[in-house]
Amino acid sequence: MKISIIGTGAVGGFYGSILAASGNEVHFLVRSDYEHCRQYGLKLTSPMGDLQVYPHDVEKEDAKYKAYFWNDPQDLPVDSDFIIIAIKATENEKLPFLLQSFKNKNATILLIQNGLGQENHIHVQLPMANRVFGGLAFLCSVKEAPGHIHHIDYGDLTIAESIPGGSPAEIDMEIEKLGKAFRNARISVTIESDLLLARWQKLIWNIPFNGLSVILNASTEEIITHPNSLNLVRDIMKEVQKVAASENKSISDAFIEERIQRTFKMKPYTPSMKLDYDNKRPMELEAIYLDPLLRAEIKGIKIPKIQTLYQQLSYLEYRNLSQN
Amino acid sequence: MKISIIGTGAVGGFYGSILAASGNEVHFLVRSDYEHCRQYGLKLTSPMGDLQVYPHDVEKEDAKYKAYFWNDPQDLPVDSDFIIIAIKATENEKLPFLLQSFKNKNATILLIQNGLGQENHIHVQLPMANRVFGGLAFLCSVKEAPGHIHHIDYGDLTIAESIPGGSPAEIDMEIEKLGKAFRNARISVTIESDLLLARWQKLIWNIPFNGLSVILNASTEEIITHPNSLNLVRDIMKEVQKVAASENKSISDAFIEERIQRTFKMKPYTPSMKLDYDNKRPMELEAIYLDPLLRAEIKGIKIPKIQTLYQQLSYLEYRNLSQN
Repeated sequence: MKISIIGTGAVGGFYGSILAASGNEVHFLVRSDYEHCRQYGLKLTSPMGDLQVYPHDVEKEDAKYKAYFWNDPQDLPVDSDFIIIAIKATENEKLPFLLQSFKNKNATILLIQNGLGQENHIHVQLPMANRVFGGLAFLCSVKEAPGHIHHIDYGDLTIAESIPGGSPAEIDMEIEKLGKAFRNARISVTIESDLLLARWQKLIWNIPFNGLSVILNASTEEIITHPNSLNLVRDIMKEVQKVAASENKSISDAFIEERIQRTFKMKPYTPSMKLDYDNKRPMELEAIYLDPLLRAEIKGIKIPKIQTLYQQLSYLEYRNLSQN
Repeated sequence: MKISIIGTGAVGGFYGSILAASGNEVHFLVRSDYEHCRQYGLKLTSPMGDLQVYPHDVEKEDAKYKAYFWNDPQDLPVDSDFIIIAIKATENEKLPFLLQSFKNKNATILLIQNGLGQENHIHVQLPMANRVFGGLAFLCSVKEAPGHIHHIDYGDLTIAESIPGGSPAEIDMEIEKLGKAFRNARISVTIESDLLLARWQKLIWNIPFNGLSVILNASTEEIITHPNSLNLVRDIMKEVQKVAASENKSISDAFIEERIQRTFKMKPYTPSMKLDYDNKRPMELEAIYLDPLLRAEIKGIKIPKIQTLYQQLSYLEYRNLSQN
């Protein structure tokens, strides 16, 4: 398959590398690391095994990758089977520029981002798009150096089709094909019919743990160790449940308890928001906090604990970025 | 006047020193610094002027203080005109031990502490007490070294009589006498009739700023600089207002706005809770957060933002103290 990757960072760099390693033709759009990647490609260090994904024109004894590195979005092949967008939600205002090649094409998109309804950007920017899928990555990885992605743990992907308006979609051959490409690359994939439900289910975990890991400067394990911060996590999850319910996305109490129990069993995990904060990058506050708050506001639902986190985080972000 | 000071720390050491300097006979109960104070007394550095309050038996050219330093609570004079209690609210379980001399006496008490209804400890421990007053200090001071109090800024005191049950009291000669002692020592004193109202009015400021200064690692000035953290302060103040109203203590919106405006005009101020946290001491979470939460619970009132702060702070305290 021919796959384009828009956003070759911790997420896009990881998935793109293993998709290239499993035999796909992968076109990476690379911004600041372009000169480096054009020469050496991408290095992936990972518990799944280390890789050096050389550019297609570098012949190596052990492997020949169909990997292409570009720095102009117009160079991405318009006949890509899939376009994977893995920029941060904070960068979505760049989408018109990044997607210009596909403007009037029947492209098929997979948007791997945090948040809710970010796929609407694609529906608006690419009205001619064939299909739009959303991807939810449960992945701990960082970009360690130019062209070097360090995959720390996990990597599971949930994918579902985005239907404007948020109703569920049918699972068909196209999404199965996409899932298979990842599974061939040794990624555990769950295919869901209801993207908005899947996104709310992910936010059940992300809203408490992303924010509290920054505010309390703590790992997920530390947060759940103290009964009061664990109660806070549960209270916040219940607030997410309430807003989701107002959008007819039902999340059970048992689901919440299962997520908490799973967190107890997890290896200590540093959420992406904490990595962003520690590296003085913008946090995805709009996608993870502001959008749910606006949806709650529209429905007249009070989610004061989530609002408190947002108010604290936006102050911390302001201070963090003004110290740059 | 003969005054006993129980708790010779940043608060008791400050007020006791200036009461001694203005001619009162002051008996200090000193714990860890006893040997030092017995010899040199108390050193006060202050924008009001520096002082060295030598013990009564040390003759100096410039001053002779009537200052006594004791390390056994039984040595405090039972005929003290006023007993000022200035230990932290976190140490109130020591009151039976500290007050043993006054157990069956008609003592007159001034309790200078944060929180709500801490005077009930006195009503319970000293049922024979003549009068019980509560003091609210707006004071920035620290104990810098053994026997050395550094008064940084402010020092205003609000005093009011504690009536079990929380109803207002009449302002009479006895409280005026107490007020005069402080005024003679150049302290600005406000005498109020309604102690519980005064304590709720103080919590309007303390609940947002004490907690957020710890959680966000920020000064009062930084907290009010960003619109979202300022909104959080205001939301929290409104929650305090709601619980106070349920106890028939009415705080107006104008009062809240005035407190916010006053904070804009203040020199940057580090709340006592932040000083405690930074010095790895217990914070006054029970007096400032848990007690208001319990009162809200009794009245069936929801104060989720205050609860969020409490849940965050109790985690932070746990971590902070286990690193000792």
